[in-house]
Amino acid sequence: MGRTREIFTAYPGKPETQDGLYSEDETRLANRNSGLLLETLRHDITPTGAHYLLIHFDIPHLDAQRHQLEFGAGFDAPYSLSMDDIRALPAVTMPVTLECAGNGRARVSPRSHSMPWGVEAVGTSEWTGTPLAPLIERARPAEGTVDFSFTGADVGFDKGEKHPFGRSLTPQELAELDVLLVYEMNGQPLLPQHGAPLRIVVPGWYGMASVKWLTRIEALTERYTGFQQVQTYRYRDHADDPGRPVTAIRVKSLMVPPGVPDWGSRLRFIEPGATRVQGRAWSGGGVPIVRVEFGVDGQWQDAELIAPVGQYAWTGWHVDWQASPGEHVLQCRATDAAGHVQPLQPPWDASGFGNNMVHEVGVFVGSA
Amino acid sequence: MGRTREIFTAYPGKPETQDGLYSEDETRLANRNSGLLLETLRHDITPTGAHYLLIHFDIPHLDAQRHQLEFGAGFDAPYSLSMDDIRALPAVTMPVTLECAGNGRARVSPRSHSMPWGVEAVGTSEWTGTPLAPLIERARPAEGTVDFSFTGADVGFDKGEKHPFGRSLTPQELAELDVLLVYEMNGQPLLPQHGAPLRIVVPGWYGMASVKWLTRIEALTERYTGFQQVQTYRYRDHADDPGRPVTAIRVKSLMVPPGVPDWGSRLRFIEPGATRVQGRAWSGGGVPIVRVEFGVDGQWQDAELIAPVGQYAWTGWHVDWQASPGEHVLQCRATDAAGHVQPLQPPWDASGFGNNMVHEVGVFVGSA
Repeated sequence: MGRTREIFTAYPGKPETQDGLYSEDETRLANRNSGLLLETLRHDITPTGAHYLLIHFDIPHLDAQRHQLEFGAGFDAPYSLSMDDIRALPAVTMPVTLECAGNGRARVSPRSHSMPWGVEAVGTSEWTGTPLAPLIERARPAEGTVDFSFTGADVGFDKGEKHPFGRSLTPQELAELDVLLVYEMNGQPLLPQHGAPLRIVVPGWYGMASVKWLTRIEALTERYTGFQQVQTYRYRDHADDPGRPVTAIRVKSLMVPPGVPDWGSRLRFIEPGATRVQGRAWSGGGVPIVRVEFGVDGQWQDAELIAPVGQYAWTGWHVDWQASPGEHVLQCRATDAAGHVQPLQPPWDASGFGNNMVHEVGVFVGSA
Repeated sequence: MGRTREIFTAYPGKPETQDGLYSEDETRLANRNSGLLLETLRHDITPTGAHYLLIHFDIPHLDAQRHQLEFGAGFDAPYSLSMDDIRALPAVTMPVTLECAGNGRARVSPRSHSMPWGVEAVGTSEWTGTPLAPLIERARPAEGTVDFSFTGADVGFDKGEKHPFGRSLTPQELAELDVLLVYEMNGQPLLPQHGAPLRIVVPGWYGMASVKWLTRIEALTERYTGFQQVQTYRYRDHADDPGRPVTAIRVKSLMVPPGVPDWGSRLRFIEPGATRVQGRAWSGGGVPIVRVEFGVDGQWQDAELIAPVGQYAWTGWHVDWQASPGEHVLQCRATDAAGHVQPLQPPWDASGFGNNMVHEVGVFVGSA
């Protein structure tokens, strides 16, 4: 426990990592945060509880009866809303695919010491709420507003600095994105771990923008400098690079691993013959998926696409494969309407953000 | 991918582990399986989706409309039940605390190469179903029955052997345990990852007995030899020890880590002064908790207990602590009515089963 004082008074910096070996802290984060169970990619909407979870601090214990959303500093007509007020506003239900910006971090070398996501930090839910932009307009942002900050009730330390989780969006981003003020997920009140009683969902962006446990919105005449906006969630070439903000989700796809697994390795066993392989593909900013390819040992074929259930929801795909005996590497690779294609190797980022390399699954085709 | 053939044809054995360093396979299991978020110990009933999940193979994709539970071989009056049949039977709702037998494995040295649970593989849900024993009686077990097997729809490999997940209970165990045939969790139909559409819950035993995705019950005149009964879930002194079956949950307690966390290490920061610390304690086989002690740097005081919401549900506790500046190690230790007390060090088991050592949380008390 000698680490305790150091962590809260003189942050020691991130430990070095070794490829393929994970620290106690990384494994504790993996036990606490949870990934999508890949076989649930069969469902248009991820079953509740199987959606990925990334919680920086602790789940705050909030009372929905007393919860208030405050449109505070920087507005000419500040006001606040109770949950009853918000539920009385025009309601919209929107299926949205959310992905953690750190998804795929474990594949980047050297690996940043953080939550060691493989491929599973993604999910699609039906979010119910009310459009946010008109509510901000109603509070009349002061002349010269260049940023809106969103503050959650979750508080903790990172790199020795105490702060609430907070993020911002510019007036232009707010105008372009269909940001929803959300109180239900999959037809039920938000669960504590998904932001109860109130959060935002920013469709098409990585999950860090979708602030949970939302308490306060402010209008700022200088850019927001909250820790989670400025010190994390930036693409950096190296530790000292000020970086570029992480925003829209990059094109990506995953498959339901076919056959049956080995418990420990998750490698797959398949009987020889006709095998249907299915999965999902998505991109950011509402850009549609136009192509998914399925690869067997580097030989690619086009998959059939299934229309998504919403503009911001993933696209289903499937392909029929004649599985021949032996060992194979299966891959899937998506292309979006803007021409972005998933890379075969992880794009470099010092924090392991935005790794959208192709999904690979190792299989053994044989008779058991 | 050279490992694939070997894993499915000539199981290579478990890799050695290093204290404090985890393999790619262990971390992948930690990303896939999910632990309780400790701050949800505030709730009598764990919020849906925050309950621990340990899934050996894949979640089977079952159709509740067509699902049948078969009372098959070994019964003199075999029959089967549809989900409608089962829902028409007398319904019981029971809050039950379930814990994974491997919870705490990461603290045992040398560590077994498997799911690297810290302390978080536990949860309490309200399970709704119908008592199982009368349904087995109705099928009339053949003369000489010594075991009942329960087979799930989930199939996969472990140690190179393909098998469905299956477990058994003896007639005596079935008579003594309040086994429930379950179709709802927390007032909602079972979620896919919790066994939809049908599972059993064996109150008071570690989670491996509560077979999910249940399809078949058989009566056997020899003891059941299914892989998950005989080859795993046994307390073993060493790898070649035939071992003793893992059954009832051992006495244990956890606390809601007080204060606020550091993101990466989960160590805690607390302001000096009065701090209420709360948590839960439980034991197996319906044995009540009679004492919980709270320790600060090895100095123990008794906590106040709160009556549990059911015979098989955990007991709440809380204590008021005057937090003094500096670094501290907080612990909690439960005692049950049978006189069992949590040990300060992990009990030895080759597979890391049944580790019920006290929960330890490192804190720094200071001003931020």
